[in-house]
Amino acid sequence: MSDDDNSPISARAAKQLFAELKGAPALVLAVSGGPDSVALMWLAARWRRGLARGPHLTVVTVDHGLRPEAAREAREVKHLATGLGLTHRTLRWRGAKPETGLPAAAREARYRLLAQAARKAGASHVLTAHTRDDQAETLLMRLVRGSGLAGLSAMARLTERDGVVLARPLLDVPKSQLVATLQRAKIGFADDPTNRDTAFTRPRLRALLPQLAAEGGDARTLARLAGRLARANAAVELMVDGAERFLQLRARGDAPQAGVRSFEAQIFFEAQAFAALPEEVRLRLLLRAVNALGHEGPAELGKVETLMAALDQAMAAGPAAANGRPVLRQTLAGALISLAGGRIHVAPAPARRPKGR
Amino acid sequence: MSDDDNSPISARAAKQLFAELKGAPALVLAVSGGPDSVALMWLAARWRRGLARGPHLTVVTVDHGLRPEAAREAREVKHLATGLGLTHRTLRWRGAKPETGLPAAAREARYRLLAQAARKAGASHVLTAHTRDDQAETLLMRLVRGSGLAGLSAMARLTERDGVVLARPLLDVPKSQLVATLQRAKIGFADDPTNRDTAFTRPRLRALLPQLAAEGGDARTLARLAGRLARANAAVELMVDGAERFLQLRARGDAPQAGVRSFEAQIFFEAQAFAALPEEVRLRLLLRAVNALGHEGPAELGKVETLMAALDQAMAAGPAAANGRPVLRQTLAGALISLAGGRIHVAPAPARRPKGR
Repeated sequence: MSDDDNSPISARAAKQLFAELKGAPALVLAVSGGPDSVALMWLAARWRRGLARGPHLTVVTVDHGLRPEAAREAREVKHLATGLGLTHRTLRWRGAKPETGLPAAAREARYRLLAQAARKAGASHVLTAHTRDDQAETLLMRLVRGSGLAGLSAMARLTERDGVVLARPLLDVPKSQLVATLQRAKIGFADDPTNRDTAFTRPRLRALLPQLAAEGGDARTLARLAGRLARANAAVELMVDGAERFLQLRARGDAPQAGVRSFEAQIFFEAQAFAALPEEVRLRLLLRAVNALGHEGPAELGKVETLMAALDQAMAAGPAAANGRPVLRQTLAGALISLAGGRIHVAPAPARRPKGR
Repeated sequence: MSDDDNSPISARAAKQLFAELKGAPALVLAVSGGPDSVALMWLAARWRRGLARGPHLTVVTVDHGLRPEAAREAREVKHLATGLGLTHRTLRWRGAKPETGLPAAAREARYRLLAQAARKAGASHVLTAHTRDDQAETLLMRLVRGSGLAGLSAMARLTERDGVVLARPLLDVPKSQLVATLQRAKIGFADDPTNRDTAFTRPRLRALLPQLAAEGGDARTLARLAGRLARANAAVELMVDGAERFLQLRARGDAPQAGVRSFEAQIFFEAQAFAALPEEVRLRLLLRAVNALGHEGPAELGKVETLMAALDQAMAAGPAAANGRPVLRQTLAGALISLAGGRIHVAPAPARRPKGR
């Protein structure tokens, strides 16, 4: 595809990009007015026109209320969408904006609003215009933020979120092809200056991409790597599923422990069977259990690693103390993890007392 | 450890770094004369002096015959080694030097010479002075070269090679600590200008590290990532081992196929059982089989991916043609891969005819 990187996307190629969405009842297109999302809208509209029957398309523009031009840009998208025969809605992000982590907060709000719009429109999917270039940047973001395999897998083509599937049909498409598509179609687009604002990490990392590309690490290479890591991650997740079922079956064979109230959510692993699993699998089992039962949001990978090292050490030190008291007892992300009587228990941590009491 | 990054390595800390090598009969230390390897030599000598019984240490300097100063530097290492009471040998890389890929060829030659020296010295391990900074650079090298999970796992602390274990006891240690160690010990070291020569990829990528570090992706973060990926990779390899045994057991249950000569090395997988495995596992099974039976060196990951896509398509298309001929037949890296009679066969490819005949 390297010689096609600046060619417009043909109707035939677009048909393949959207193929798996053909049977959906309705689709929401997330369109900001930038070149990528305007191209997504234009491509989807052309694809839909070529179908005798197909999903109803609703274009949604989220106005984050952060830039004064945003309202005008939303009106321009509405104008374009209407011209293409598509329904359009503008949604506003109301409420307080955080002082730090603004891009992440804006993204959270955007997805929430889009999922609401999808439910309202009876849409099974929200389509975003993430490109291969975005995927490469995401990989780089995760790299510098100290991620693991799951994080470095970057964005998936399909992700479930709030009961709606987020679809990224353009994830293998270079941005240059989208721009060429719009130029060929003689369609204008807004240019979000936030994309070049070096107050944010992503634009700063974006500026590094040409240097990496000069060494061979172009967007194609990085996006392919993300795909390969996602493939390996899926295999590891299957392995963890299997280990989870295995440990559940072993646990069912055990007699219920005195003092365990069955109506209380908790997960336990037989320590000996757990210890025999590969390190990566043990770590993910712990991570899943802590995230399922903790009430303080997802646990940090580094903290779960520290917890596992403590567990490994405690298990290697031998069996539980003769008095039956836990040999390890720690809280992490609102979950209480303990090792007692040859078992690892994970349960919701007791609520913390408010400070000053 | 972040506040210790510029502190010398204590005798106590070094004892932990070398702990698992205590029982070895002899060790070869690869020492170029640069700060990292001189520090390795100094640390190992101090550690050895503190042991009543321990391995015999031989210092080996490889002169690649590429820089005129190399012979003098080797003599300086000999002088230092002798002063520390260690045996020293200089080995020369003789023979033609390639015009492209010089660093890789020099590395190959170096490891070959070091493994020879180890066998001669009765050493079980060759110790190299790779640091956490080297690990971060290696990750970055693999990233831009389009690697997968195995490649991105970067360097392992222990690797077997030519019957000798390559040990990297300083892989978690920042280079700055090694320099501080030498300064405290008042030991001089050579500075290899090749390390800054921007004719080579590694020094150019090294120049990018401060920019990544400014975003959080410092050597610690990148090296930790390599470790996490290595952990996941080990789990995937276990999964592939299991799948391999499973497929072997199924194959043994089958009656031998007419026309298969049993004295000829070949591997076959029952296509249906193979198809049910996760994509990553299927890919690695193919990669292993091709590398085991092909005679043209390791297969490229991208080519194995293309082969697997062809196999998947052929298997999805239905059973073999009624005439029993293979529905797919391809060569890759000197291996012949075919799909016939519901089986995937991998065997050495017939030797290619010389060109022009």
